[in-house]
Amino acid sequence: MLTDGSGLNLGFIFLLQSLTLASHSQTHPFSHNFPSRTNFPGSTTAHHRAPVSRSYAPGDRSDQPRSKVIQWIKKNDGNDIENEGLVDGKDIERCWSDKNIAYREPLLRKRTNTTSQIAIVGSNVSPIESLDYEIIENELFKQDWRSRKKVQIFQYILLKWVFALIIGLGTGLVGFFNNIAVENIAGYKLLLTTDLMLKQKYFKAFVAYAGCNLGLATAAAALCAFIAPAAAGSGIPEVKAYLNGIDAYTILAPSTLFVKIFGSILGVSAGFVVGKEGPMVHTGACIASILGQGGSRKYHLTWKWLRYFKNDRDRRDLITCGAAAGVAAAFRAPVGGVLFALEEAASWWRSALLWRTFFTTAIVAMVLRAFMEYCSSGNCGLFGTGGLIMYDVSSATVSYSVADVLAVLLLGVIGGIFGSLYNYLVDKVLRTYSIINERGAGFKILLVITISLLTSCCSFGLPWFVKCHACPTNLTVECPTADASGNFKSFQCPSGYYNDLASLFLNTNDDAIRNLFSTSTEKEFRISSLFVFFAAVYCLGIITYGIAIPSGLFIPVILAGSCYGRLVGRLFASITKLDMGLFALLGAASFLGGTMRMTVSLCVILLELTNDLLLLPLVMLVLLISKTVADCFNKGVYDQIVKLKGFPFMEAYAEPYMRQLVAGDVVSGPLVSFSGVEKVEMIVHALRTTGHNGFPVIDEPPFSDAPELCGLVLRSHLLVLLKGKNFSRDRVLTGEEIFQKFTAFDFAKAGSGKGLKFEDLDINEEEMEMYVDLHPIINSSPYTVVETMSLAKAAILFRQIGLRHMCVVPKAQGRPPIVGILTRHDFMPEHVLGLYPHMKPCK
Amino acid sequence: MLTDGSGLNLGFIFLLQSLTLASHSQTHPFSHNFPSRTNFPGSTTAHHRAPVSRSYAPGDRSDQPRSKVIQWIKKNDGNDIENEGLVDGKDIERCWSDKNIAYREPLLRKRTNTTSQIAIVGSNVSPIESLDYEIIENELFKQDWRSRKKVQIFQYILLKWVFALIIGLGTGLVGFFNNIAVENIAGYKLLLTTDLMLKQKYFKAFVAYAGCNLGLATAAAALCAFIAPAAAGSGIPEVKAYLNGIDAYTILAPSTLFVKIFGSILGVSAGFVVGKEGPMVHTGACIASILGQGGSRKYHLTWKWLRYFKNDRDRRDLITCGAAAGVAAAFRAPVGGVLFALEEAASWWRSALLWRTFFTTAIVAMVLRAFMEYCSSGNCGLFGTGGLIMYDVSSATVSYSVADVLAVLLLGVIGGIFGSLYNYLVDKVLRTYSIINERGAGFKILLVITISLLTSCCSFGLPWFVKCHACPTNLTVECPTADASGNFKSFQCPSGYYNDLASLFLNTNDDAIRNLFSTSTEKEFRISSLFVFFAAVYCLGIITYGIAIPSGLFIPVILAGSCYGRLVGRLFASITKLDMGLFALLGAASFLGGTMRMTVSLCVILLELTNDLLLLPLVMLVLLISKTVADCFNKGVYDQIVKLKGFPFMEAYAEPYMRQLVAGDVVSGPLVSFSGVEKVEMIVHALRTTGHNGFPVIDEPPFSDAPELCGLVLRSHLLVLLKGKNFSRDRVLTGEEIFQKFTAFDFAKAGSGKGLKFEDLDINEEEMEMYVDLHPIINSSPYTVVETMSLAKAAILFRQIGLRHMCVVPKAQGRPPIVGILTRHDFMPEHVLGLYPHMKPCK
Repeated sequence: MLTDGSGLNLGFIFLLQSLTLASHSQTHPFSHNFPSRTNFPGSTTAHHRAPVSRSYAPGDRSDQPRSKVIQWIKKNDGNDIENEGLVDGKDIERCWSDKNIAYREPLLRKRTNTTSQIAIVGSNVSPIESLDYEIIENELFKQDWRSRKKVQIFQYILLKWVFALIIGLGTGLVGFFNNIAVENIAGYKLLLTTDLMLKQKYFKAFVAYAGCNLGLATAAAALCAFIAPAAAGSGIPEVKAYLNGIDAYTILAPSTLFVKIFGSILGVSAGFVVGKEGPMVHTGACIASILGQGGSRKYHLTWKWLRYFKNDRDRRDLITCGAAAGVAAAFRAPVGGVLFALEEAASWWRSALLWRTFFTTAIVAMVLRAFMEYCSSGNCGLFGTGGLIMYDVSSATVSYSVADVLAVLLLGVIGGIFGSLYNYLVDKVLRTYSIINERGAGFKILLVITISLLTSCCSFGLPWFVKCHACPTNLTVECPTADASGNFKSFQCPSGYYNDLASLFLNTNDDAIRNLFSTSTEKEFRISSLFVFFAAVYCLGIITYGIAIPSGLFIPVILAGSCYGRLVGRLFASITKLDMGLFALLGAASFLGGTMRMTVSLCVILLELTNDLLLLPLVMLVLLISKTVADCFNKGVYDQIVKLKGFPFMEAYAEPYMRQLVAGDVVSGPLVSFSGVEKVEMIVHALRTTGHNGFPVIDEPPFSDAPELCGLVLRSHLLVLLKGKNFSRDRVLTGEEIFQKFTAFDFAKAGSGKGLKFEDLDINEEEMEMYVDLHPIINSSPYTVVETMSLAKAAILFRQIGLRHMCVVPKAQGRPPIVGILTRHDFMPEHVLGLYPHMKPCK
Repeated sequence: MLTDGSGLNLGFIFLLQSLTLASHSQTHPFSHNFPSRTNFPGSTTAHHRAPVSRSYAPGDRSDQPRSKVIQWIKKNDGNDIENEGLVDGKDIERCWSDKNIAYREPLLRKRTNTTSQIAIVGSNVSPIESLDYEIIENELFKQDWRSRKKVQIFQYILLKWVFALIIGLGTGLVGFFNNIAVENIAGYKLLLTTDLMLKQKYFKAFVAYAGCNLGLATAAAALCAFIAPAAAGSGIPEVKAYLNGIDAYTILAPSTLFVKIFGSILGVSAGFVVGKEGPMVHTGACIASILGQGGSRKYHLTWKWLRYFKNDRDRRDLITCGAAAGVAAAFRAPVGGVLFALEEAASWWRSALLWRTFFTTAIVAMVLRAFMEYCSSGNCGLFGTGGLIMYDVSSATVSYSVADVLAVLLLGVIGGIFGSLYNYLVDKVLRTYSIINERGAGFKILLVITISLLTSCCSFGLPWFVKCHACPTNLTVECPTADASGNFKSFQCPSGYYNDLASLFLNTNDDAIRNLFSTSTEKEFRISSLFVFFAAVYCLGIITYGIAIPSGLFIPVILAGSCYGRLVGRLFASITKLDMGLFALLGAASFLGGTMRMTVSLCVILLELTNDLLLLPLVMLVLLISKTVADCFNKGVYDQIVKLKGFPFMEAYAEPYMRQLVAGDVVSGPLVSFSGVEKVEMIVHALRTTGHNGFPVIDEPPFSDAPELCGLVLRSHLLVLLKGKNFSRDRVLTGEEIFQKFTAFDFAKAGSGKGLKFEDLDINEEEMEMYVDLHPIINSSPYTVVETMSLAKAAILFRQIGLRHMCVVPKAQGRPPIVGILTRHDFMPEHVLGLYPHMKPCK
């Protein structure tokens, strides 16, 4: 297998498979009837490659490659060879044999179809080093860098920090803008409703409330459906996938950023049970990505210095910073943001990055702080005192006994069970919604409208079933409140009474959480009200994620979690001294642990939210337990969505069955390779007929004594080289000339979707017959493994170093110098288990 | 270069070099006179290896290896080949050419001499996989693991958590014990002194004070000098080196643990300007290491389950947990502990580890909390309320203006400058002390006594120069205090007056820090007193580190930092509203940033110490600035000590000059290799005459068509195999039989110093002539690089995957199948720049 730009193909597989699925839903006839691949005659790797490999016999090698490529092209015209021997439908079935179907079926068929650009981009320490990252670093560090270059190095380092600063400022601003907009829009909506309720115009109040919600929801859905479909959902799985090396085209585009910002504001204001945290992370990543694209030539917003960032590693680093900044902005939790990026988002981490990320989140924290200081004097409408410190410790005791710890243990277990159930249901709902969403923008909006109406009915309807509560006497706050927020909503109740369920439902999500977290309000909420609210929020949270609006998962989970935490607290009230607000906090922690499966970062985020480090041991305990319990059932919600969307995510560890295979077992041929000095025609043909992003180059006599692997050359560099038309009539080395024509930066990685395309080439008949020297653009030291290397070890190498192409070389001598190329797709369980279906993963 | 057990040799190099240094101290005559290595005739790698490499000509290979090894043995009898071509004195000079001398000269010549056991142990994801780690995992996961093995997997996973629990409990207990012991010992000492002072018996008071100090100090020094010299110093550099893969023999031994615990208590009680934080980290690591050794057969404390931990990765993970637990216990900072382990201690990190480490530190926090709850009712003597929350926020405002931020910026810059100066001076002092310490235990103790007397004189003498202060009127605490601790010491002052300098000097370090951090005590300390205290503590801190007692660096740095922070605060008093206590905190942060160069972990530790997250932006800012400033001058203090001790530490990044070299350039031959079925005599000879820990095995006809690299075999496994005496008279494969005789666990990694030694072998003449089949113990998929691979990339592979041996294979065909083996030492700047001295590192 040679290419990694196989998004299109993957899409086909998925489509094919989904269609098949429609008829035989769970038990698959093929999966049992087909003999396992290893029993096929000639199915071992060596045989599989034989027709091409053997043709490399030493001796008559001078024009071997040409005929080979042409032969191959004739045979496979129009097909991507990547899945040759696999795409015939039968093998695919085996990839998706019964047991794996439920889990591995990718959801977004449509998206995978439109992402033929999935180019496995963006995730590397030094993958394509000699010509992508290293070309920049070589420019900077290699030759003569003591004099002139020192300035450039300084520019480069300075720019990294400036970018971190800009990301911090940008994300902080967006975070603040989001907060202020939501508080104002939702605030006025709630004020209007409350006002009408006080005048006892109940029906009008409902119409106003539901109408506002509907309008806001439709606007959000329209933005999402028409401008940037990629902005729907949380965004964290996409960012996670990007940082793992998967660049689904529009994920970090400017349009996505725009929709994510405004869609999130509208969606949250519309009263959905969604949060702004996921979207904030996505927003931060988008801002970082746009910075890292090297400006925009279209709008003349480009700058010479920016070219240093035209490489994968720096872009990845920027986006990691962006993700951290997003969390920092959403929760005002700078340390939590760094830890989130480290624990959940990033697949590769360097200690230099820790420092830069920390700087970014510190900037975010400072920006938010400055603005909130400004708003605290009432300059920002309904923003109020703002601030996210939800659980005020000063009035609660935090010493605890054995009974308290038992209650906390119980909370953890419940959180784990509810969390894994939540993940399971979200998965099911996403699959259902995807069928609806695929039918077009209209259906998407219709779905949003339905959910919006349902949410409005729940929020406005359920409080009617609750009796009024008399206001407590020893209060420092107003009761009932006529304010937009507040702990005691009057709803339909007479003066001096309040409706506890309305206090939860008819508030923004942030305020509802603050109410649940409030201390010294033990009896404020009835057990029945808490139960109803929990059930409603749990279900609404599940059915809301997946509709076409930007929707975070944190807030629904915190909301439901804190609600059942308070419930458990009420049940334990007789034997525990812990405050109900603390129980709510621990409930939120347990549910977060059960769904997201993060530990340290969640813990720190919660502590930063509540500003009390004395809670730490309890929060830790509850997180550990809920994660452990939930891990028995399924994966974390983000991992699940990543799988569902069909991103070829590389895990950090190797699967156990990989220990039984060697690298050579999963390489699929035939291989398209070039000579060191290759005919233009060959290259053009190979580029036209394959989607491969990397080609091995093999030096042959007279350029070397025997055929030897010279290195790897990338499609993008070939395109630049061909565009430059530095051809010669004879088969000679012309390396020096090429570097007179090109500078290193010509080969630097272009921004997403900005690189040269095959269609940009314009080569005439005469030029087709000429030769071009590939040596100057070859990555002459690709990472290699011997074909007998354990696949598990190869996978670890691939992932740890962050490769995109790994050359497999033969063990014995006298064979052609390269056996094949391993790409990300070759390590996917779908591919490996497709080849060896008897090696079922059993855990 | 083939071995990595070259501690002895390294020691010699160091010794040689140091001796040379004595005569030509700075400018080295050789370094300029010798032509650079690349100009030597035949100095390219291929030629360098030629005599042996060429003998691999295909054809007459059947008994080639034997004659080759014997020839080589005759030539090099008794020498370690690792540095062949290097140890002749001239090349070494080049390693240490003028510019690098000051920095790279290792300090502990004596130690490196006794650490021929430095076996580059303990640091790997999958280094020697097929037979070290993988043997366990294979046992667990590979074959047939669905039935019987499931129990084992459960045992294995459960045990990991149990170990984390035990480490947490153990470190928590030690931390608590340390606290309580120090508070009581130092407390009674101070009470006695204060008592005598009150009776105006000043001389007696001094004698009592200095006498107590001297006694405690001598006891600590005696423990250290006679029982475990490795327990001296902080311990963090050693743990860091261990986690990087360097196992200096006694670093984690039980005797070290014992001395570290008691020596630290005695040393801190003796009034030295040292902390218990570094020793706590070392203690945690020791506890973890002893757990990971698989019990003690000597004391019948072994257990079948423990064998699962007989591998490097699990031991490394345990020790990472231990280091985190140490920080958590020292500062009661569980999140800070995790981040410390991540940022400073660990060289490899896995997300599973994050979780387990977090669990350990949570346990530590809970243990400490439980004991402190118990002690708060006065059950623990002078322990008092304990607790480490030093800076109580409730009485201080934390809103700040631009002027405040400017003051903070200044603090950061000063902290950076002082911090780097501190590192520089510590380095110099360590070098001086090492000369004294080398002369024997007596000299060590004498040095400790000197420093102890000096410290006592400073502490008791300097307060005499200070005038008495009238007690403030609006106090809630006693003034002057007669207590052991307390903010207002009377010293020589009459009733109603206090001596501010004595309040700082005549307290434990913890109490002094608490006094400096105290809020709302703006005028308590005079500027002059602060200045004197700062100067004294700064100097004492520098001259105390390096004496033969367990001594942490955190407390001296915090002490000096908070002192100058308060000083700066006093200077800015007119334009800032920030509290003096807050300035002290920020000063401590800036100085910590300037010396340790950590960011996130320091920040979180400080926040957990002070329990106020609102300080975060300021603390972040000050840390970032001080680190940036200090990084302009030198490295962090721990990195510096690691280098100084001569540990071959692998950095995460490749040096720029490595980009200009290829892997083949640094491989040094000749190579000792075995055939797949080798004569016993050959193996015994190779084991006896070399210190190599890994040997390549090359299969030859009749076992393969052509010579091919079969894999790597480790010295330890060879010893086990030879001990088993599974020999055959003929050159045949006997693989199956071997696995009837051995179980996988026989080859599992033994504890430090517990493995089989060469001397344990007992092979007679007849057996020497027999053959042994090496195939069953070969690591058949070692990581390989092609000889033309960029050295920088090879280094990244080596470090990222965590290897100990990396095979270099030839590029062209028709050459012997292996060019050489790269070990950690081959990537050291000393080695590379020794070979290519013209490639000076210039940054």
